Amino acid sequence: MSGNEEKPRSTIFDIDKENDFPNWFGEICKVAELADIRYGVKGFTPFPPWSFMTMNNMFALLEEVLQCKDHLPMLFPTVIPESNLTKEAKHVEGFVPQVFWIQDIGEDGKLEERLALRPTSETAIYPMYSLWVRSWRDLPMKRYQRCSVFRSEVKSTRPFLRGREFLWIESHNVYTTHDEVKAQVMEDLETTKEVVTDYFGIPVMVFRRTQWDKFPGGLNTYAADTLMPDGKVIQLPSTHDLGDNFARAFDITYLNENNETVYAWQTCYGPAISRIFGALISVHGDNKGLRLPFKIAPYQVVV
Amino acid sequence: MSGNEEKPRSTIFDIDKENDFPNWFGEICKVAELADIRYGVKGFTPFPPWSFMTMNNMFALLEEVLQCKDHLPMLFPTVIPESNLTKEAKHVEGFVPQVFWIQDIGEDGKLEERLALRPTSETAIYPMYSLWVRSWRDLPMKRYQRCSVFRSEVKSTRPFLRGREFLWIESHNVYTTHDEVKAQVMEDLETTKEVVTDYFGIPVMVFRRTQWDKFPGGLNTYAADTLMPDGKVIQLPSTHDLGDNFARAFDITYLNENNETVYAWQTCYGPAISRIFGALISVHGDNKGLRLPFKIAPYQVVV
Repeated sequence: MSGNEEKPRSTIFDIDKENDFPNWFGEICKVAELADIRYGVKGFTPFPPWSFMTMNNMFALLEEVLQCKDHLPMLFPTVIPESNLTKEAKHVEGFVPQVFWIQDIGEDGKLEERLALRPTSETAIYPMYSLWVRSWRDLPMKRYQRCSVFRSEVKSTRPFLRGREFLWIESHNVYTTHDEVKAQVMEDLETTKEVVTDYFGIPVMVFRRTQWDKFPGGLNTYAADTLMPDGKVIQLPSTHDLGDNFARAFDITYLNENNETVYAWQTCYGPAISRIFGALISVHGDNKGLRLPFKIAPYQVVV
Repeated sequence: MSGNEEKPRSTIFDIDKENDFPNWFGEICKVAELADIRYGVKGFTPFPPWSFMTMNNMFALLEEVLQCKDHLPMLFPTVIPESNLTKEAKHVEGFVPQVFWIQDIGEDGKLEERLALRPTSETAIYPMYSLWVRSWRDLPMKRYQRCSVFRSEVKSTRPFLRGREFLWIESHNVYTTHDEVKAQVMEDLETTKEVVTDYFGIPVMVFRRTQWDKFPGGLNTYAADTLMPDGKVIQLPSTHDLGDNFARAFDITYLNENNETVYAWQTCYGPAISRIFGALISVHGDNKGLRLPFKIAPYQVVV
């Protein structure tokens, strides 16, 4: 559908993936109708059926694994009040520079308080967790949402790999102890292996991030990296031990079994399906074109 | 989870739905944990697992019907450049007063052109359709997306029934003739009956809207209405014969079999699942609480 005025469909795709990866990636997105970069807003890309149906299958597999492990889906608003977004100091530092802000409405209206397009949803969800978590009986609380998030990347953008709007699942969990948090982090790494490596066929290595590279506001970040065809590393899902930092900032407390009010412990985990899709086509494709793992191809064809 | 400090869970739900509907609706949302109105931004409501899992089931049934009728899923960006949003005059008049605008980025950045949070996606999708549709061989093009849309309702908002962010499917279709457009409108009405009435158990009546009440920019609108327990009418899915109005505004042309460049014909159809969910709980619930049709309940229990 796209760009067929420049390049007739019958042209045989033949680009050296290893030696000319940027060109290979751009052409595969165009020729296989995976993304159309002509939308006219930097970093925002329409996903036609071929890529979107594949990503839907990827989401379905990931959600199945999460639900088997007792994480339930929910959905929070796309917008976050500025006063909530700026409650946790390190988080502000990390995310505010990348935020898209809404203030004007209609022809000449103005919101009293600016709203952020969510760059990630801790500051949307945790004020409600503060209301929802009351007693140790409410814990663990394991929830996730599938949604778009928005970050005004200054670097050059590329479909799937680096967009200003991208598609992900974010899992937000609350526990009574730090040990349970550490166990959840291990479970997330296991989920990453199960889904990204076993189902999607993408090899990953997991590293604990250095302190300057961790999730802003968390204690520790563990991320899975993979190698792209050009030899560069790309970060795939990361999971975060938030300690009780956000619980303190957002007042997430509960009554323990001794009837004392104490802070809860938290994790979050953010597999970005659109980015994983970018890695997936790069890892599996070859000089002749696109190849998809059987499990996630939108149509199954026997040749 | 919500509001249990005011009302212990053991209190038996007993509210007269017919005579005290606003109170019944507010309480059922709270007690059955369907929506939490304490998010702090007018018209934006978190959906906890019970309502969201149910709406997911509703989406799945609707998407299955659409896909059986050859409509394919895709996904467009959440934001629309102002210059595109304002290309079709009537559409501007109808939607611009309700738009949330993004201009600021980060700490002191500004976008050159304002972006609208999509109130509906004609003006996001049709510029790309203008590139994607080339020849009569590309038609019909039948696509839909599942997404959130945003409208700054001035009226008082209510979870599900009237929100500033709501969840829907929007189907956007392109044809070579006006007759095919009329046939698609009939198909959409059939889909509405199949899904909303047969699957969800909500009786509807379909009316062609008067000219002043039609979709801004279209030729004719056909909408399904249902009666709420308080005797008020609520509009459920509507489908629109767009004629060739948007094709002219967005230059959606194709080469016909005689090699002439002509304008295409279009429809769009917008079943708002979150609103249908609001109607569904209102129609099926009773004075004692929530009742869900078997097909869409998140858990099946044998009593």
